[in-house]
Amino acid sequence: MPAAATELQAAERGRVLGLIGDHRANWSLQQEFYLDPAIFALERELWFPRQWVIVAHASEVPEKGRYIVRKLFDEEIIVVRFGDGENDIAAYYNVCTHRGSRICTKDGRGRLLVCPYHAWSFRLTGELQTKQDLPEGVDPETLGLHKVPTRAFGGLVLCGLDRANLPDIEPVAAGLTDRLREHGVDNARIVVRKSYPTMANWKLVLENFLECYHCRPAHPEYFRVNGHVKVTAMRDAGQAAVWQEEVDAWHSVIGDAEFNKGVWEPGDLDTMPFAMHRKPIGSGRKTLSDDGGPVSRLMGGRTDYDGGESGFRIGRLSFLSAPNDYLAMFQMIPRSVNETDVVITWLVDRDADVDVEAEKISWMWDVTTVQDKIITEDNAAGIASRAYRPGPYTPLESQTAFFIETYLSQMKALITGERAATASTEWEAPMQLFASPKAACPAPRH
Amino acid sequence: MPAAATELQAAERGRVLGLIGDHRANWSLQQEFYLDPAIFALERELWFPRQWVIVAHASEVPEKGRYIVRKLFDEEIIVVRFGDGENDIAAYYNVCTHRGSRICTKDGRGRLLVCPYHAWSFRLTGELQTKQDLPEGVDPETLGLHKVPTRAFGGLVLCGLDRANLPDIEPVAAGLTDRLREHGVDNARIVVRKSYPTMANWKLVLENFLECYHCRPAHPEYFRVNGHVKVTAMRDAGQAAVWQEEVDAWHSVIGDAEFNKGVWEPGDLDTMPFAMHRKPIGSGRKTLSDDGGPVSRLMGGRTDYDGGESGFRIGRLSFLSAPNDYLAMFQMIPRSVNETDVVITWLVDRDADVDVEAEKISWMWDVTTVQDKIITEDNAAGIASRAYRPGPYTPLESQTAFFIETYLSQMKALITGERAATASTEWEAPMQLFASPKAACPAPRH
Amino acid sequence: MPAAATELQAAERGRVLGLIGDHRANWSLQQEFYLDPAIFALERELWFPRQWVIVAHASEVPEKGRYIVRKLFDEEIIVVRFGDGENDIAAYYNVCTHRGSRICTKDGRGRLLVCPYHAWSFRLTGELQTKQDLPEGVDPETLGLHKVPTRAFGGLVLCGLDRANLPDIEPVAAGLTDRLREHGVDNARIVVRKSYPTMANWKLVLENFLECYHCRPAHPEYFRVNGHVKVTAMRDAGQAAVWQEEVDAWHSVIGDAEFNKGVWEPGDLDTMPFAMHRKPIGSGRKTLSDDGGPVSRLMGGRTDYDGGESGFRIGRLSFLSAPNDYLAMFQMIPRSVNETDVVITWLVDRDADVDVEAEKISWMWDVTTVQDKIITEDNAAGIASRAYRPGPYTPLESQTAFFIETYLSQMKALITGERAATASTEWEAPMQLFASPKAACPAPRH
Repeated sequence: MPAAATELQAAERGRVLGLIGDHRANWSLQQEFYLDPAIFALERELWFPRQWVIVAHASEVPEKGRYIVRKLFDEEIIVVRFGDGENDIAAYYNVCTHRGSRICTKDGRGRLLVCPYHAWSFRLTGELQTKQDLPEGVDPETLGLHKVPTRAFGGLVLCGLDRANLPDIEPVAAGLTDRLREHGVDNARIVVRKSYPTMANWKLVLENFLECYHCRPAHPEYFRVNGHVKVTAMRDAGQAAVWQEEVDAWHSVIGDAEFNKGVWEPGDLDTMPFAMHRKPIGSGRKTLSDDGGPVSRLMGGRTDYDGGESGFRIGRLSFLSAPNDYLAMFQMIPRSVNETDVVITWLVDRDADVDVEAEKISWMWDVTTVQDKIITEDNAAGIASRAYRPGPYTPLESQTAFFIETYLSQMKALITGERAATASTEWEAPMQLFASPKAACPAPRH
Repeated sequence: MPAAATELQAAERGRVLGLIGDHRANWSLQQEFYLDPAIFALERELWFPRQWVIVAHASEVPEKGRYIVRKLFDEEIIVVRFGDGENDIAAYYNVCTHRGSRICTKDGRGRLLVCPYHAWSFRLTGELQTKQDLPEGVDPETLGLHKVPTRAFGGLVLCGLDRANLPDIEPVAAGLTDRLREHGVDNARIVVRKSYPTMANWKLVLENFLECYHCRPAHPEYFRVNGHVKVTAMRDAGQAAVWQEEVDAWHSVIGDAEFNKGVWEPGDLDTMPFAMHRKPIGSGRKTLSDDGGPVSRLMGGRTDYDGGESGFRIGRLSFLSAPNDYLAMFQMIPRSVNETDVVITWLVDRDADVDVEAEKISWMWDVTTVQDKIITEDNAAGIASRAYRPGPYTPLESQTAFFIETYLSQMKALITGERAATASTEWEAPMQLFASPKAACPAPRH
Repeated sequence: MPAAATELQAAERGRVLGLIGDHRANWSLQQEFYLDPAIFALERELWFPRQWVIVAHASEVPEKGRYIVRKLFDEEIIVVRFGDGENDIAAYYNVCTHRGSRICTKDGRGRLLVCPYHAWSFRLTGELQTKQDLPEGVDPETLGLHKVPTRAFGGLVLCGLDRANLPDIEPVAAGLTDRLREHGVDNARIVVRKSYPTMANWKLVLENFLECYHCRPAHPEYFRVNGHVKVTAMRDAGQAAVWQEEVDAWHSVIGDAEFNKGVWEPGDLDTMPFAMHRKPIGSGRKTLSDDGGPVSRLMGGRTDYDGGESGFRIGRLSFLSAPNDYLAMFQMIPRSVNETDVVITWLVDRDADVDVEAEKISWMWDVTTVQDKIITEDNAAGIASRAYRPGPYTPLESQTAFFIETYLSQMKALITGERAATASTEWEAPMQLFASPKAACPAPRH
């Protein structure tokens, strides 16, 4: 790089480190982190490539030769089942090694992946099959498809961009596979998928998803259905006690004392966080539906409703909500500094009635996410003002605050190249609070 | 700021000063001033924040608790009537002090301003009402809404961005309030508002608005209705004399010899310019309408038509046209380097017939502004060519030329920090010309 | 230019030279050449202005006073017939010398070109006619329209941007005029014009146009109609021999042994390349139509179908396809780093039936270009991936490879200011290959 460009890049990174240094703990971020394309470019270069994210459900590639075209951050990838094993799933960049064309423009099935431009063909395992047209001296072995790090387990397919720097996913697979099976994730089929493109920085989308302080003013339906919101939203000691009794009663019946599983967000990028958390919906409701009544077949071999919802965090950008009879799978996909796609996929048991009603199943999270899109876009609009100043996170937004603090320490470590002591040892979730209802969260450590 | 960035900024400002230095007096601007986002960024930082502009008519917030959401340059603000006094109107940035969300998404009414995100509430006077959720140690007094400098008088509500550097508006309020009342501006109600988004730099929009050399070729309806265009457009000595006779006759009947009020554009940014100017429409027409006949109730206590039109300049970006029976209020709002909104609001007397015909009232300025949008966009398109070179302003474009000269001296002063001698002492409007028909203008000084 | 800006520009150009240095011969370009707006800006500054391109067919300005508004790269120009001579055609930037407005917003006819803004008028030869409004001391002679270098010959009108650096067009006029007349280009009229805006860098559009390796997988209709594709697409020795026989037979009947005319792409920017090439369509087809049957009147005084297609290259961005009874004129117009317009104009003999069927005439190139748009956009999409790496051009893409190699050597010469030895002496087209079917190409030199 020429000296002038190097200097400019150093100055740019210095500027971001300065902003990180100016951050006031437990207050929202300075404007630049939400608006500045240069900071998004840094995240795109340094932060996103280190995240494992869900790209598909395994049922989308049900047998050998089936392939699908999906997004992985700003990349388009081909996810293909290359063998007969449960987890024989690979992913490739959707880029021909000849002249760079997209290879697949839609989902399909075949023995080979064939580029429509010049008909170069690739095996399901990525090697170049076409050889006769190559110029002399060019080794076809060097022209296989570019692979995307991929790991399938428990019905989920995860990918990440940066092979060299992705954290180890095996502890997550080991820790979650059985739990996912218990919830029937591996035995599910998709009912409907919806996308909620949101004109806001991805961190605003996550900040919103990680707290339920806004649930009462902004989500009347969610507030009506979910018992826990009564407490978090009201900060009413009496209500809190009533709800805690309901939770305790539920757990004593369920016999599921150890209802938090996972490695709590470690605050550094070398460990992939994951978590599972169970809680009752409350008020005798069987599932997350408008009237509390069942909407599909019980999942995971369950024989009766227990009225609970399990929440999964898988990495930092993928989530699952699992009441007894359906799944909602969340993908948060940053598109640009002020565009984020929230994609929700609803699944039911593979053997559920073919006529399951998608509207009933998707009702709770659809109505809630449509509202989230609006409030998050209004949040982004206000932050763009010259009058915006960081504001204080309240105790009811502790997980949001923690996400912001760890994000900043991660960015600092990525920019300087220094590994900070992990933040997790320093952080402790406020004891008096329930976890966010919208994202799985283990009990705090002491 | 890092050294490299400082150097770059200095270089950038040096470049703009160089362009100002290269300007040829009384010729149009060099291409960069119309196209370069960096120059627009400088204007956004330095020039726009020093302008008072009309943001609303007082009737839009008719009683205590009514609030409206409006634009102030690129900012969204809440204009609210907080008390019972005629001018008890305040404005706030539409930004919650909690996490930055927009607070109001539409006009409304209430005792408090309540953010829809987490229900933080603010009094009409801006203070934070919500206190119970705050983290310990955070002083709610520091979390009131961000105020926007606001001054209401004579039925108009004006705001500006930069509290520290806005010129004194009191002389304008003192100079214009009575005149606005005489025209019934304080006693008016809105009939219709239209926006004319124009793909052109804001200076091109003003350059067009400030001259009528183009009126004959480009505005056949305006030319037909307005006597003065015959002269300015034709430069015909005979026609000029005929028109001057008509003007003199009108003034001798009206007895309104002193028909120019205001502080002529002072050429520097420390004084807020304003002006009022009266002239006859001509040919016996009563008002600015298609057939010259009345279109609504006489305004301001007037008992008969005198066939005149008053033009007001209020600051540099707001204008009023006031024939006897309606008002047209102009707001010129820069959006980006090549986008400007022209917003026109038509008003009539508060007690006018409820069935007034908006089409008749808005006809003159609507047909003219639709044409202005087209010619200004064609102007912008041509300027984007590599063949564009500055061209000479003719004597018929003297006010446009003056605007450009003062704009450049203002930008130079803002960039260097030096205050130049005001340009107004050096400048003299050409004697032989009538004022621009499309913007109020006092007689030249000698 | 300030020092910091100069350094930055030098660094930028150094970066591009570094990329050129890293290029691997006969492999596709590095990503930056297709995506980087800075490289497009360099092309816009240095490369495009040195290209002569077709801007119109002479029939579009049939008599004195007729003018048309057309695009020349990113410029809008007025092409006008100013006299009665066959080639009395001039072009001007569509920019008024008064305040820069567009002068003509649509095609028209008149004795003068009149700006709609302030009615300034210009003669057909460009001089300012309006003089009475000018300020004192301004010389109207200096305010004529800005001319665009223009040369009309053989029915075509060509323009270029950079008067000082355009190559000499006279050898092309001398070399092609008779050939164009033989094909009736000077005696044609337009049937239909279609635009195919393509979201891809202009080099990708050309790369695609210059090879037919993709014709079999991507163009089933073109493959069915055109004999030569059978060979180039199949690389089948038997098929090649059969086709060569058909070509030889055709030439022996036609008696047109010397069927390649023109100066082969010289590889430097100081010579304007041109070429004409003839080949049979094959299989007894009379013209490039769906069923091989005639679609219009024979052109150029031809008395019978010979089943051939002539291909013309005129400069680097304009092409003609000429079967016996119609013409397809191609203009490749770069719009931005990732937008290119492909404009095709179909013409027939001036005396052809007025009811000629545009759909039949345009079928072959319309169906093919719609497909080209899709595959080129998919190519661009894939190249935007971080996984894209340059890939090897096969022998079937030799003209594409040659275009890329000469483009790079030209850019290097333009950036460094050094003139390289022309590449043409070093290059030799592969003997065993037929020319690209989609662009005229002379036989290789030995």
